[in-house]
Amino acid sequence: MGHVIGFKCIECAREHRVGEVEYVCSACGGNLDVLYDYERISQRLSKATLAADHNLTIWRYRALLPMEDSSRVPPLTVGWTPIYDCPRLAAEFGIKQLLIKDDGRNPTASFKDRPSALAVVKAMEAGARITTTASSGNAGCALAGMCASVGMESVIFVPVTSPPAKIAQLQIFGAKVVLVEGSYDDAYDLCLAAGQHYGWYQRSTGYNPFMTEGKKTAALEIAEQLDWDVPDKVLVGVGDGCIIGGQWKGFSDLRQLGWIERIPQLVGVQAEGSSAIVDAVNSDGKVREGEARTIADSICVGKPRDATKAIRAIRESGGCGVKVSDDEIVAAIARLAQATGVFVEPAAAASFAGLLKMCENGAIKSDERVLLLLTGNGLKDIDAARRAVKEPLRVRPDLAELSKLL
Amino acid sequence: MGHVIGFKCIECAREHRVGEVEYVCSACGGNLDVLYDYERISQRLSKATLAADHNLTIWRYRALLPMEDSSRVPPLTVGWTPIYDCPRLAAEFGIKQLLIKDDGRNPTASFKDRPSALAVVKAMEAGARITTTASSGNAGCALAGMCASVGMESVIFVPVTSPPAKIAQLQIFGAKVVLVEGSYDDAYDLCLAAGQHYGWYQRSTGYNPFMTEGKKTAALEIAEQLDWDVPDKVLVGVGDGCIIGGQWKGFSDLRQLGWIERIPQLVGVQAEGSSAIVDAVNSDGKVREGEARTIADSICVGKPRDATKAIRAIRESGGCGVKVSDDEIVAAIARLAQATGVFVEPAAAASFAGLLKMCENGAIKSDERVLLLLTGNGLKDIDAARRAVKEPLRVRPDLAELSKLL
Repeated sequence: MGHVIGFKCIECAREHRVGEVEYVCSACGGNLDVLYDYERISQRLSKATLAADHNLTIWRYRALLPMEDSSRVPPLTVGWTPIYDCPRLAAEFGIKQLLIKDDGRNPTASFKDRPSALAVVKAMEAGARITTTASSGNAGCALAGMCASVGMESVIFVPVTSPPAKIAQLQIFGAKVVLVEGSYDDAYDLCLAAGQHYGWYQRSTGYNPFMTEGKKTAALEIAEQLDWDVPDKVLVGVGDGCIIGGQWKGFSDLRQLGWIERIPQLVGVQAEGSSAIVDAVNSDGKVREGEARTIADSICVGKPRDATKAIRAIRESGGCGVKVSDDEIVAAIARLAQATGVFVEPAAAASFAGLLKMCENGAIKSDERVLLLLTGNGLKDIDAARRAVKEPLRVRPDLAELSKLL
Repeated sequence: MGHVIGFKCIECAREHRVGEVEYVCSACGGNLDVLYDYERISQRLSKATLAADHNLTIWRYRALLPMEDSSRVPPLTVGWTPIYDCPRLAAEFGIKQLLIKDDGRNPTASFKDRPSALAVVKAMEAGARITTTASSGNAGCALAGMCASVGMESVIFVPVTSPPAKIAQLQIFGAKVVLVEGSYDDAYDLCLAAGQHYGWYQRSTGYNPFMTEGKKTAALEIAEQLDWDVPDKVLVGVGDGCIIGGQWKGFSDLRQLGWIERIPQLVGVQAEGSSAIVDAVNSDGKVREGEARTIADSICVGKPRDATKAIRAIRESGGCGVKVSDDEIVAAIARLAQATGVFVEPAAAASFAGLLKMCENGAIKSDERVLLLLTGNGLKDIDAARRAVKEPLRVRPDLAELSKLL
């Protein structure tokens, strides 16, 4: 890991050398940034070496990830998810280009396979036998699946309200599943306490500094897949704030390397009932914790654990925060699926709902290129989708009867 | 389409020129094989041209598919799904190599995106505005998604018993969904009648000769991804019989081109309650239609529509038919997920259950390499998965309470 210089606390700015800290700042408990030696990375990685690399997973960027060269990686192929150009929708909205990146195509059907794959690498490097995480669902499924693929045990804490498909997925991977009678925020606190008590490797978002690094791989892909001509705006649903923080980190790494000139404006989209980070961005920058409630379970967070990184991402990129209602999210699921053939879960649809709102408000100029980061497959939560559609026809197997109904 | 010579009926062996028939044999109504000019194909496609082709979708094989060079293809990226090596399982079963190909990674989360993408190409070539199919679920979801991606209308006939996730997926893509009060076999007959009555482009399995061609792309990938060193056996769940027939066609094409020397033994796995094809293979080769009943909805077929191709595939490849119980299928979902991190639906798990049965019976030799074609994501049917797992822990957010339970 000679390319990792150390860590820097995002709250008190104290720097730590590698090995001095495990998860958070030893001085103030703040979340950490991973610091790199970009000169050294430049000697090993270039646009040309990437172009010649046939490994179409996140590990093509391992020179830019906090891992040993010799590290084993889980066998499931993570990343390099497709980006689709949507010219009909772009024309409808009067913008230059609309791109969607379908991260529901990852192994366990969500974006969270990116950080969870890296978590398993770090757990193996640390010699851990058991890995744990708090999750609204997807992060846990991703960790459970990655652990199964390498024969590691996992203990996953989710709120009891997690969608049935996510709970089933956790169980089928053989994780020890702890349904917490409370919110994601409650599950998070219990997971942290249990992890410390039992000595499990802790993946939980924010607390584990490497999750930002796993999440940044989407930004690296966006840049490379678009031939280093990044979009003007990237919209993403925001819960804890780690995904949007990760996108900033990825684009920032590329700017440090001199491979891109600017970071896209990062737009954080939250549900009206779970909007602590957007509210902070739109006011004094201070997060006010409270109860969260939204149909978009993956971004239902009252106490966001990576808010500082998220706010930095939005502000330093010149982005903004947008709030959408649950009804807008539900409608966005159907509209996006019908226009593109991509079926997403509510938290991912939030980014599309945010785009619609920005277009209505004139917040996107006609010469702009916009990318939506779609973070989860719709099969993860079909109850939400069903709210968006009409009842199907139901007939006896008889053409005459069908003809009457059509 | 100069590389397509014509069609040959698999029942009466009559040959038809391109343009003479639309779907089935005009003489006897039998299903058709697509005939190719392999010399001509060889001039355009080689192992070397493929190795240099960066298009990692089924369209890398368009020179081997029944489509115009100029045909537009749906934008969703289909195919080139991962193959994972499972050395721990192989050691456990005492076989040389176990490979799994996860076709749940396709855009709508099943293998059926392959034929449905080609169906949309053929429908567009034919100038159709509306495309229809009968489906137990996955084929319909795939067609609906592909149609949405190109702005085409679809009408999908499924039995009312189709898993909720599949029905939700159909609806969200904006298909006109017809829930048929009956079996898949009933839905099939109604779809055929309605398609003829209304003049819709007909995708239904078996009847449309191009679906075998779309399905063969998995075999082409298996060969290429394994560097043209094909496995000894390929196991696949069988319903109508079109998937296994497609694998035979793909390997057969490659043998005709001289790129592989032998076709893997194709093993068809059916559920005990839906075993018309396996029963035919294991007796006089004649299919006895009847009622079907199994938890594996995707292969719940009493009147298999592509049985002749399936039986040919199994017999000509030196394969066999295997039957597994619903309990074995359910158990296989969990065992596979826990060993590999790949969560599949019941019909896909059937192939793994079939492997277990063959290993128990000594039907696989210790020096053999075996591949399982996993045809659908487990999120398509979580009720089946839940039958395989224990209830999760449920606790209040309190470490002391958790400690008592752990």
